[in-house]
Parts: sequence; structure tokens; C-alpha cells
Amino acid sequence: MWKYFDNLPLKDRSNIASLGEGDTALVRSRQIGPSLGLDQLYFKLEFQNPSGSYKDRFASMAASLMIEENRDRMLATSSGNTGSALAAYAARFGFELDLYVLETAARAKLVQAEAYGARVIRVREFGVTESGTNSVVERLRARARTSEAVLLISATCISPRQMAGVKTISFEICEQLGGAPDHVFGPIGGGGLFYQCYQGYREWFQQGRIDRVPRMHASQPQGCATVVGPLSRNETRAQAVTCTSRISGLQVAAVLDAQVALDTVLDSGGSGQMMSDEAVYSCQRRLIREEGIYTEPAGATALAGLELAVRQGLVKSSEQVVCLVTGGGFKHLESIDAMLEGASMPLINVDEI
Amino acid sequence: MWKYFDNLPLKDRSNIASLGEGDTALVRSRQIGPSLGLDQLYFKLEFQNPSGSYKDRFASMAASLMIEENRDRMLATSSGNTGSALAAYAARFGFELDLYVLETAARAKLVQAEAYGARVIRVREFGVTESGTNSVVERLRARARTSEAVLLISATCISPRQMAGVKTISFEICEQLGGAPDHVFGPIGGGGLFYQCYQGYREWFQQGRIDRVPRMHASQPQGCATVVGPLSRNETRAQAVTCTSRISGLQVAAVLDAQVALDTVLDSGGSGQMMSDEAVYSCQRRLIREEGIYTEPAGATALAGLELAVRQGLVKSSEQVVCLVTGGGFKHLESIDAMLEGASMPLINVDEI
Repeated sequence: MWKYFDNLPLKDRSNIASLGEGDTALVRSRQIGPSLGLDQLYFKLEFQNPSGSYKDRFASMAASLMIEENRDRMLATSSGNTGSALAAYAARFGFELDLYVLETAARAKLVQAEAYGARVIRVREFGVTESGTNSVVERLRARARTSEAVLLISATCISPRQMAGVKTISFEICEQLGGAPDHVFGPIGGGGLFYQCYQGYREWFQQGRIDRVPRMHASQPQGCATVVGPLSRNETRAQAVTCTSRISGLQVAAVLDAQVALDTVLDSGGSGQMMSDEAVYSCQRRLIREEGIYTEPAGATALAGLELAVRQGLVKSSEQVVCLVTGGGFKHLESIDAMLEGASMPLINVDEI
Repeated sequence: MWKYFDNLPLKDRSNIASLGEGDTALVRSRQIGPSLGLDQLYFKLEFQNPSGSYKDRFASMAASLMIEENRDRMLATSSGNTGSALAAYAARFGFELDLYVLETAARAKLVQAEAYGARVIRVREFGVTESGTNSVVERLRARARTSEAVLLISATCISPRQMAGVKTISFEICEQLGGAPDHVFGPIGGGGLFYQCYQGYREWFQQGRIDRVPRMHASQPQGCATVVGPLSRNETRAQAVTCTSRISGLQVAAVLDAQVALDTVLDSGGSGQMMSDEAVYSCQRRLIREEGIYTEPAGATALAGLELAVRQGLVKSSEQVVCLVTGGGFKHLESIDAMLEGASMPLINVDEI
């Protein structure tokens, strides 16, 4: 992603902290696109990043700024992927990392962060209620103010310069397609990914590098619909909720970047799509079984939104559509196990072949 | 990897079966290189491939040939990564896959293959003894002859055209470094990866695209030393063994490509390095903790070999060295769990922050 250095808020190239992030594949749909009547459906495989999710773009930017500003302690919150991403860069560049995570965070993500050497602390109510979530953020802000630590939360409202790394997803997509797509579907947790992707398109549009900005479509589970709930009621204010969704990575009860994400939908002429957790799991299965794309549930949420948008007639068959696949299937084994429930794996002798 | 179409044994570009494989990062060591006195140590992150290991290069080539030759059934053996790679492409391109695997194969790899839709059958003694391993191969060869299925084994001696996909690793490394490195360290299971990488360098050398061929150093656990055991005794014949190593992916008791791998060491002026499983786990930990590189044990085996070669004075501090990191940490959670044994992950209330 560092070929886009000029679009990123780092002063000196010598401070770039890279671990091979970015330059992920954009693959054309083989089976799902045709089944939806779409000629040009693409999936952006963000799990090819070094720690397995798009959060490495945030973490690489964060680590670079740590180096540039001579800092060496990180304080962070995460539902899992931000934590493992920051932990990878902390290990590589010699930072300490204290990581506060959801009680229910996916085990594979936490184990990964610990393997890199982060201190992982689980917090009750974090991610579930607005007050719990905001309290965690406020307390960590206070600790960061009274210590040498840098507070890192993958939300534009808290870590804007670090989050800028995420917009490189859009630059890559434009280069891979030879221009901006017509529609981009992305999942909403805190809303930062979605907003930053839009910023990327807008930036290149303003610089004359692309001739249009895509319609941005927000996909969110019903159980945590901070953006899409209000949109469905024709309201323009994002709203905190009590999270009942189980989709790892999208359990963000507070507003954070939800307002700028909601504004993105309206500004870009996109839509909001809301679905059950089961619909997300069903799309996870489709991506794995029909496209060979091993994704975690959150990474299939954009596709679940696309299915609804197609039914609503919002996407024309000839238009270019990109779904962001944010993290890999290895990140959430619980959903893979559930998918395989009852599957047998026989054990035989050689002579039984 | 398909930008190297002209170097691959496929007739028609329209038959390319791609899922975003290849173009993996080559990252420079931050901490391990300096600690070994090496200025230019690089890691090739093959876990960035779509199913999480270098085997996707084999699988993409295999799937492309299936399409070109109008076949639709795959029969394969695997210790895990070949299986999940083939299963991904089988899902995407609509092939059936029967997969025969080691009884002790890593759970994450088998679950992944099943999630994509492969039929997974575990076979006793396969991988452990020479006779068990050879019997499995012979029986599957016979089944392939009497059916429409294509037998796919990631060994040059059985699937030479498919294995050619693997040599693209070397083309990429040469482009990333602006020439061939001085030394390449790779793990040996069956030996096919190691041999194909050498073929890649030789091919470009013969075409005048690089001005030398690297020294190829083979790393292998003591418990399955089909190549390095003989080398250590100054013998030139690869030897079948009874496998006692637990390193997933390197448990190949039979010779398969071990002879051409041994010849590669001798031809290239490389060396053979043999170590305990514990030394491999220790290097896995170093890669994760010191470089932020989340690897499975097999992916750390090359580094374990490099450590020994440095001690033997085989590598000069100014030389360019590449270690192949063949698969990701997600592929083998057992080793990650062992690494973290005793680590706590406290659960606190918000007001305890």
C-alpha cells in the first residue's frame, strides 16, 4: 500500500513500517455473480494481508506514525482483527501493546494477538452496550493522556491518521479495474472501513484520477444496526444500540464512525442493507463453497447486502460491483465448525482405498 | 503468478483458473537478520496465497489443466495444505475432489478442505511408513487409471505439469530483489517445492534473465530426513525413512521428489540442514514474535536451517538470503497453543481499566 505514500499522512518514507500489507487480489466472481444476474461482480480479498484482515493497513499506518513520532507503547481496543494486526506490527517494530477486547471475541484472533506477544485483556460489556463501549474508550483515552502510550482504535473519530491507511483499498481497486466501480458493498462495524473507502474514491476523483465515485452500500446485521437501522426509517442520525448480533468484528454498539458512514451512504447515492446473522452465515458458506473464498462471517456481510440490493433493483446487470471480503475463514473457526456440523471424516486402512 | 504464463505448461490463456494466487510479499528481516549478522535476509510470505499456503500455485496450475483438458474429477493426497488448496479451486471451478490425508493431519487444514466441499478421508500409516505411503500412491494411481479422475499429488514425479506452478515463487523473488539472491533456504517434505524453486532460477538463468543461480539449502527435521540424512553421511541417494517428525507438511516417509531435491543441493552448491522438531518450533516463535510473521511450523523450518548454516560459516553477512515461509500460523493451531501454554487472558470489568 506504500506506493500510495503521497496520499498518506506520513512525513518521511524512511519511517514506513511495512510487513507486506496491501496489494491484495481482486477476483472476479465465477458463480455467485451469474446467479445474481451480474456480469461484473468482484471480491477484494483483504484476508491476504499479513495478519489476515484489512486491519493491517491501519496497523501499518499506525506503526509508521509511532516510528515517526518516536513512541513505543500502544494501547488499543479490538473485537479481534485490529488487535492481531497491531500485535503483528508491534512484534516486528518493537512496541509494547496492551489490548482490550470483547469478552466474546473470536478465539483465533485473540490467540494470534497473544502469539505475537501482545497483552490481551477481555472486558465485560465492551461492544455489547453503548455505555460499556463508551466507558472503555473514555478510560483508555484518560490512560493515554497520563502515560506515554498511544491510543489506537480503528475508528476515524479517534485515530484519523492511522485510519487513512484503509483508503488504499480503494486506490488498489481502481487500479485493478482500470477505473472506479459502479457499486461498492462493505460491512459496517464501527463504520470506519466504509467511510475510509469512500474517502479514497473521493480523493482520487478530486485529483482527476478517476471519473466518478461509486455508490457506497452499507451492510449490517440487524442485531447491530447503528447505520442501517436509522436509514431504514428514513432517519439521518446514526444511533447507538444494544448489540445482539454475534458476527465477530461487527459488534460495535456505540456510534463511533457510524455517522460518517451513514453520511457516506447518502452522499454517494448508495443504500443500507440489514440482514439476520443467519443470512450472513449463509453468504459465508456461498463464498467458500461456490467461489473458493475462505472468509470469516464479517467478510461475507457485504455479499449479504448485495443479494438484498439486487432484489431491490438497485444494481444493473452490466454494472461493476465490488464486495469487500475483510477477513479470512481462519479467523473464526466457530462458524466453520457450525457449517460442517455432522460432517464425517472417515479413518480407513490403506487397503480400503 | 499468471503473468509468467509463457513459462508455464498451459496452452491457452482462456483456461487460466485463478483465485488471486501468487504475488506474495518478500519482506526484509527486521530483527532476526541482524541477530544472525546478516544484512539482507528476506522472508517470502507464501501464506498470503488465497488458501494460506504456497500450494495454491500448484492448485491453480492443476485447475487450469483440468479446464484445458476437459476433466472434472480430482483424486488427491495431502498432509493438509495441498488438500485445502485443491479444495478451494475445486469449489470455484466446479470439480469434485476426493482427498486422502494423513491420520494426524492438522485439524485446521482438514476443516478448511471440508468447508470448501471436498470429501476428506484419513488413512492410517499414510505419511508415516514408506510402504504405507507408497501403497496409497499406487492404489490411487490404479483408481485414476480406471476412472475419469485426475490424480494430483504435489510431487514432480507424479504431477510434473501441475508442480511447474511452484517455480513462479522464484520468478517473483528475482523481480522483487532485482536479481537472483545468493542463498535460498527451503523446507523439504516430499522435496517438490525445493526442486521447483531451483527449476525457476535455472530457467531464468538459461533465458538470460538473471546472471546466476542461488545456492539452494535444504532444511528438514531429523525425524524425516529423506534428503538431509543421506547428505550428512556424504551419500548421494535419497532414502525412505520411518517418519517420527511431527512437523505438519514435512511428514513424507517415501522418496518422491527427495532425489531431485538432493541433486538440487549438490548441483547448486547448497547444503543440507537437519534439526529437531523443537528447533523448528523455536524458529516459528521467533518469526512470530520478532518479525510479526504468523507462520506454521513448516514455514519456519527454512529459518532453522539458516541458523545452522550461519553457524557453519556458509553464508556471508553481505549476501542476499531468502527463507521460504510456506504456510500461515492459522494452519496449525496446536503449535500456537503450545507456544502460549500457561498464558493468561484475564477477564475484567470496565471499571477495572
